[in-house]
Amino acid sequence: MNVKECASWLRSRDSFLILTHIRPDGDTIGSAAALCSALRRLGKNAALYANPGITPKYMGYVEGYLASECDHEHIIAVDIAEKQLYPEGFSGDCELCIDHHPTNSHYAGELLLMGEKASCGEIVFELIKELCGAPTPNEASLLYIALSTDCGGFRYANVRADTFHAAGELLSLGADVQGLNFRLFRQMSRERLCLEGLICSGLKYFKDGSVVAATVTLDMMELSGATENDCDDIAGIPGRAEGCIVSMVIRELENGKCKVSVRSKPEFDSAELCARFSGGGHKMAAGCTIYADPDETLKMLVSAIDEVWE
Amino acid sequence: MNVKECASWLRSRDSFLILTHIRPDGDTIGSAAALCSALRRLGKNAALYANPGITPKYMGYVEGYLASECDHEHIIAVDIAEKQLYPEGFSGDCELCIDHHPTNSHYAGELLLMGEKASCGEIVFELIKELCGAPTPNEASLLYIALSTDCGGFRYANVRADTFHAAGELLSLGADVQGLNFRLFRQMSRERLCLEGLICSGLKYFKDGSVVAATVTLDMMELSGATENDCDDIAGIPGRAEGCIVSMVIRELENGKCKVSVRSKPEFDSAELCARFSGGGHKMAAGCTIYADPDETLKMLVSAIDEVWE
Repeated sequence: MNVKECASWLRSRDSFLILTHIRPDGDTIGSAAALCSALRRLGKNAALYANPGITPKYMGYVEGYLASECDHEHIIAVDIAEKQLYPEGFSGDCELCIDHHPTNSHYAGELLLMGEKASCGEIVFELIKELCGAPTPNEASLLYIALSTDCGGFRYANVRADTFHAAGELLSLGADVQGLNFRLFRQMSRERLCLEGLICSGLKYFKDGSVVAATVTLDMMELSGATENDCDDIAGIPGRAEGCIVSMVIRELENGKCKVSVRSKPEFDSAELCARFSGGGHKMAAGCTIYADPDETLKMLVSAIDEVWE
Repeated sequence: MNVKECASWLRSRDSFLILTHIRPDGDTIGSAAALCSALRRLGKNAALYANPGITPKYMGYVEGYLASECDHEHIIAVDIAEKQLYPEGFSGDCELCIDHHPTNSHYAGELLLMGEKASCGEIVFELIKELCGAPTPNEASLLYIALSTDCGGFRYANVRADTFHAAGELLSLGADVQGLNFRLFRQMSRERLCLEGLICSGLKYFKDGSVVAATVTLDMMELSGATENDCDDIAGIPGRAEGCIVSMVIRELENGKCKVSVRSKPEFDSAELCARFSGGGHKMAAGCTIYADPDETLKMLVSAIDEVWE
């Protein structure tokens, strides 16, 4: 399906329930809410599935779109690459999936897939233009949330020329770029700032600084007052250090185990390291669980890195 | 002067020395180096004034353009709003100034001023297109440094639709957006990470969190090993805290005094606060020096805030 076909599929139907993925991020939420708003402008009955995973950070943007019941005729999945990523509490089939993951498993009846886009928001942007012309300023803001968060505020490797041009268009259409940039990328809770501070001032360096590790103990969580909502993307923190090739965050859990997140540059295989501890993932991002305290876990990982790094 | 006129002014002359401003940032350096490269492509003799303030962060990008002598016929100032901002060691007159500061004092013989641009890099981008067509990939990278740093990686209030579109064009022209984003916005020295960590985990909150203060003591500098080069933009750190309206960084100096940087949202006048301590600045960013230790300085500032905040 291309954008034109998808638009006419939507135009000829009514009553849509729009799904966001499990542990929803800015892209799935912003894309789904913008689409919902555009469908309502066309006089359609449309709502978002009330994904229980929506965090306070995003709730304010989507409250007005959430469905109280789910008796809609057509189910649309947005930014959901496979059925396993359906939101909690939902099971069933989708008639339409709109996605940008090249790995999409083609589980839906109809699929609008544009694997070259940095965000699903860019696809929905094109779809809205086809459906009803220019997005409203609020839709532009929702699409800016989608686009900007999925490329780390234009700083990740997936940014393309298209991404910048779409952002420029959204700004011209009235997206609140200034306010959103502040809230999405600069503002942090007191607890997160404190936790991040404890992590950054306690980094440990090995092998001339090419290996950088952070431990996040239960004590640090208590001292900072941080909760799970304050822990977004902490796996990325030690990788900021100049010269770092392999970075690890070791998070102490209750009952004597640690959750480990590994990130690396292409010259090191994170998945191979984590496989030694029955974990898995990708070459540049992997994880595992180790049944030991944080210090012991760190020692085990550092010596395993020596073995993998041949 | 407009871009066309500026291009023909340059085309009809030869032998240029290009100035960057004192305490040079990415915009002045990237803009000047890209212009220098384009002029050399036209067969001109051109070089950058060897500004002693260029930090290691930027030196690698400009080394090849620095002048060993200054016997050039024409002096061009780039991103320099007034003569007081001439680089250290330079005095004299400029024949041409290329700038985006609306406050430019018109000190140069000829002026290409585009006050609506987020960065001087965007002006030089247009100028290079007029002078010799598309920038080379290296010039595109230099212009991306200029553009992206002056808008805080697309996160400051000065970002416009134009800024995004120019970034998209530069990416298409071969700018190393991915590598530069990492080096300019993510990567930090070990010392900076540690110092930032100590600052973030030691923030002090007043008035329900609307006032947030950081103290940077000599001990913290020693503990982290940070030097002046690691202190870029630390004034912005406490302002990240959710709910913050006034933020202050109190930096302990030798011999019992503190340098204070204040940042605020529009509802508080930073300049008025700093004026009480013989300092100055703008409404949303000001500074002063206080002759007291950090704790005492903080107390004085907090009670002065109470008085200003009526």
